[in-house]
Amino acid sequence: MKATVLFSGGKDSGLTALLLEPFFDEIELVTFSFGYDETWKAAADAAAKLGHPHRVVVFEEDVLNKALDILLLTGYPNDALDYVHSIAVETIAQECEFVADGTRRDDRAPKMDFSAIRSLEDRLHVQYIRPLAGLGLKTIKAMASCYLDFAEELSERYPASDFEVGLRYALAKRNGQSEVDRIFPAKHTHTRVIRRKRFVQEVKGQEDQTCQGIQSES
Amino acid sequence: MKATVLFSGGKDSGLTALLLEPFFDEIELVTFSFGYDETWKAAADAAAKLGHPHRVVVFEEDVLNKALDILLLTGYPNDALDYVHSIAVETIAQECEFVADGTRRDDRAPKMDFSAIRSLEDRLHVQYIRPLAGLGLKTIKAMASCYLDFAEELSERYPASDFEVGLRYALAKRNGQSEVDRIFPAKHTHTRVIRRKRFVQEVKGQEDQTCQGIQSES
Repeated sequence: MKATVLFSGGKDSGLTALLLEPFFDEIELVTFSFGYDETWKAAADAAAKLGHPHRVVVFEEDVLNKALDILLLTGYPNDALDYVHSIAVETIAQECEFVADGTRRDDRAPKMDFSAIRSLEDRLHVQYIRPLAGLGLKTIKAMASCYLDFAEELSERYPASDFEVGLRYALAKRNGQSEVDRIFPAKHTHTRVIRRKRFVQEVKGQEDQTCQGIQSES
Repeated sequence: MKATVLFSGGKDSGLTALLLEPFFDEIELVTFSFGYDETWKAAADAAAKLGHPHRVVVFEEDVLNKALDILLLTGYPNDALDYVHSIAVETIAQECEFVADGTRRDDRAPKMDFSAIRSLEDRLHVQYIRPLAGLGLKTIKAMASCYLDFAEELSERYPASDFEVGLRYALAKRNGQSEVDRIFPAKHTHTRVIRRKRFVQEVKGQEDQTCQGIQSES
């Protein structure tokens, strides 16, 4: 069976893919874009380093407009991040049996609360997997470093595919950098996977081989 | 580096160990016992099937007494489960750098809230890892089944090493079965790992080998 991972090209969604690899026949990496080319190319490069198929989904235009409206209205990033993240998860959930992301234990946004997760799973018959939901940042760095070299980069200088970087970029284009400075914290950074150091595979013959990855129920 | 996993012998703590395997040089499985032999032997068998070293830690006697007092006082299991679980995590955290357990997204107890987790990590310089905190029960069953055969058993008939089974057993011995029936839900079941179906190992030579598992900071 296939697990589809929302992929920004960074260490969190990269580690998410690594954690799921031994349990699924296929890991598909999907990057959402607000339509600017620069923001997904880094993710496509990182996906190639990880060794998994990758595709880009462009948000419908009204998603970006609504997200920018929320940003300007609330004056802080969290609600807008929650909004675009939920659209991304719902979009993938409509076509996949397993959807995963790299949202972390210590993240304030994007975050889906327990009722929203159960609603998503029940409505769309999907299983939503958050392998980093019980891991702290220090643990995530240690585990990701074990398989990946990744760089930490200033979001202002290097475009990337995470939602915060995308919203900053679009807001600057539409309303100017002063609005970005008003709404977003200074010196935001993101990570970018630049190399995969290790691979694992199944050992044949050590035990009975009766299971070939998670099987579809359909 | 070593990760120590609180291990009941069931699918949840078994899957926890499987998820961490590719990232640590050693996985140690630790089962806490209230002092009755029958309750940890199943876990020792399951640990051998998983292929990881196992040890048993017996709670100090006042832990069981206090847990039983909480059960009788509150009339429901959750607070007592939270209490014994927190003692187990704290005990391991005092001697390890990474402590993990199989507590799930949908569990009501045992559960440690965010402040308690941060306090634990800061006080004891430990990293507390809950790989199943972002996974639903259906996903956990599917992922565990991929590597493990496990049986679901009635807790009344088959002793086991999970905390609920241990508390039921001790309460029945000290205060009689009627108190167990009053406080705990009927027909409680637990799972027991009976076979490991698959193993994975690193592929040498596919990429540079510069990382040998997570390194200690100390």
